[in-house]
Amino acid sequence: MYKIADEEIIPRRWYNIVPDLPEPLSPPRDHDPEKSSIDLLNKILPKEILRQEFTSSRYEDIPDEVIEQYLQIGRPTPLVRAVNLERILGFRGKIFFKNEGATATGSHKINTALPQAYYARKEGVEEVVTETGAGQWGTATALAATLNNIRSTIFMVRVSYEQKPLRKKIIKLYGGNTYASPSNLTEYGRKVLAKDPGHPGTLGIAISEAVQYALEKGYKYMMGSVENTVITHQSIIGQETRRQLEFMGESADTLIGCVGGGSNFSGFSFPFVESETEMIATAASEVPKFSKGDYKYDLIDTAGIMPELKMFSLGSDFVPPSIYAGGLRYHGAAPALSLLIREGRIKTEEVTEEKSMEAMGIFARTQGIVPAPESSHAIATVIDYCKNPENQGKTVVFNLSGHGLLDLSIIRD
Amino acid sequence: MYKIADEEIIPRRWYNIVPDLPEPLSPPRDHDPEKSSIDLLNKILPKEILRQEFTSSRYEDIPDEVIEQYLQIGRPTPLVRAVNLERILGFRGKIFFKNEGATATGSHKINTALPQAYYARKEGVEEVVTETGAGQWGTATALAATLNNIRSTIFMVRVSYEQKPLRKKIIKLYGGNTYASPSNLTEYGRKVLAKDPGHPGTLGIAISEAVQYALEKGYKYMMGSVENTVITHQSIIGQETRRQLEFMGESADTLIGCVGGGSNFSGFSFPFVESETEMIATAASEVPKFSKGDYKYDLIDTAGIMPELKMFSLGSDFVPPSIYAGGLRYHGAAPALSLLIREGRIKTEEVTEEKSMEAMGIFARTQGIVPAPESSHAIATVIDYCKNPENQGKTVVFNLSGHGLLDLSIIRD
Repeated sequence: MYKIADEEIIPRRWYNIVPDLPEPLSPPRDHDPEKSSIDLLNKILPKEILRQEFTSSRYEDIPDEVIEQYLQIGRPTPLVRAVNLERILGFRGKIFFKNEGATATGSHKINTALPQAYYARKEGVEEVVTETGAGQWGTATALAATLNNIRSTIFMVRVSYEQKPLRKKIIKLYGGNTYASPSNLTEYGRKVLAKDPGHPGTLGIAISEAVQYALEKGYKYMMGSVENTVITHQSIIGQETRRQLEFMGESADTLIGCVGGGSNFSGFSFPFVESETEMIATAASEVPKFSKGDYKYDLIDTAGIMPELKMFSLGSDFVPPSIYAGGLRYHGAAPALSLLIREGRIKTEEVTEEKSMEAMGIFARTQGIVPAPESSHAIATVIDYCKNPENQGKTVVFNLSGHGLLDLSIIRD
Repeated sequence: MYKIADEEIIPRRWYNIVPDLPEPLSPPRDHDPEKSSIDLLNKILPKEILRQEFTSSRYEDIPDEVIEQYLQIGRPTPLVRAVNLERILGFRGKIFFKNEGATATGSHKINTALPQAYYARKEGVEEVVTETGAGQWGTATALAATLNNIRSTIFMVRVSYEQKPLRKKIIKLYGGNTYASPSNLTEYGRKVLAKDPGHPGTLGIAISEAVQYALEKGYKYMMGSVENTVITHQSIIGQETRRQLEFMGESADTLIGCVGGGSNFSGFSFPFVESETEMIATAASEVPKFSKGDYKYDLIDTAGIMPELKMFSLGSDFVPPSIYAGGLRYHGAAPALSLLIREGRIKTEEVTEEKSMEAMGIFARTQGIVPAPESSHAIATVIDYCKNPENQGKTVVFNLSGHGLLDLSIIRD
């Protein structure tokens, strides 16, 4: 029964929100009119991923082999009622959390890394390439590639590469190759280093290097967030949550999650979009993309190699402060999510680093799990929500996008 | 159904193997005939724990509040079929693992920390005290105390205290207080420091300090392994495993686990003792307690404060090499486990650090989970088992006693 439950909860199809959006999604736009970004994507993405990126079908079948790997890496992830947290907050209602930290790599990132590596391998590719900032995406990519018997190369922002030695070790253990970015491996990296040999790197530079490296070598590039395909794959989170709530005889009044590029929040909430459920997306106060950003076409990388997308953005040249939640430092947010926020379907909150750290401690001391700094922002919003007298009696469900065990070093003593 | 399954799998009683042993267990013996160790235990242990330590009842009811906390911290833990590992080994049989790394604190240690803190609190105690070497036990103690609204003080072997800053951080996050041992807080610690101000500490010294501190302050001492009570509490692992196998329509031919003091292995395997299931306990080659140790009365701590127990031991003055699996460095093994090994009911293996590290890598690259160094010893035995032509077609179940995410720093680059 235990095993049957797992297989009944895992969906057989990913959900793509595009046909259910209130208006058509604005397509990607070439940054440099001389260079077709579709041509570029055609070269660096597996064909099936490119097709999924632009499809308007509501569902995509999940290949059997991907289902099998989802089961192996810890899906379905638990949906847990946080009884201890309810008690300490004196909340007269129910709090549930979807624990994406329970996957083998400790975050939701593996949900899209597995199919991306799978499609690359199916097309005969021997190596995938990507960038990583905080390290979660690089970790997921390395494992997904190895599980598909292909190699992986990960350009890791130099400052993370140096400050997070555990991330390098785990990526190596999984069989991935990491390079500090800017590196000498690409023309773009060499150009940056020529100007400043001690450059600490940025996610934008790392993306640029990964894309160039994939192009030059004929490898495929893996996308960690923002793009539609990624969000479609992440819909497994919300679909599982719906089924688990059904099995428990519960229904959600409110969904809460944190937003970096938007993949965990969108994957968690979009499968509920047609319902009455309230949705709250929490960003970092230090990266106020929703309150201070504009809804406009903007670059997704700093170098301008990838196409522009229409989204909430602080500008691709926005320099985020070095908050502990590395995954929330991105300047923009996924187009579909941005559209639903602009339309008012999804509300937003912003949480400071201080409040997030406090929430991390409260959650650790009540539920025992050390949440990722990013997820702790969502928890801070949950705590505020539960303290509001108007919300007593409600059922709130939040996405714990990952655990913070590999981020403990950045917590102040 | 999902939730119901959880509650159906978690047992309502702990299993105590004492009445099912082939001969009565030799009782603890005073080390110093002038000092009654029962008197000591009476002072430092909660009454209910002391009663459980010497009971010959087969079952102990688990209090409802402890059941609720077990559910909150991630019990029942998953029993997973390791399809990827089977495939890479070319094993024509089935491999399952019980994932104790999926608890909130990342190992099986929380299974006994929770009831010990619960009984202490029920008896009006405000603080519990213990020692920790590798750090898993200290982490579990800190969380268990906080969940029971009491304080905790943890004497951490100085060398670990300095080499494992993440452990300190997580214990602090859980609300525990850690001190490097030897410390200035106890007479014993001060004596050691007077002789050698730079003493790196040992688990024996840390135990001695914790017991002295508890005695002086009137606090209660928490026991991490070796003692019967601990093993009875850990029976939740094996009982859940039995039920999960039943639900899946499977049955185990062989159980494999690693042995430090013996609590994870005993808790996992003892509930199967009446069946025909083969059982293999894996120790570290560098701490060859089963092949080179004697079955005799010996001290469980180095200072000789606690009573002597009859067990396999390399001698309480054995100086273990600094292998990466800190939890396997203990000189002895739990009395009931030792007896069943001497009687031949349980077989033993020894695995080198090198083989264990290799197994850790294989498991990480197939199942995605980074196993604890200790658990990696069990995995090495599983791999050998599955490569043996005689074992094809069999079903082997092993206990993954914890994850290794907080131990990555000690893995060589």
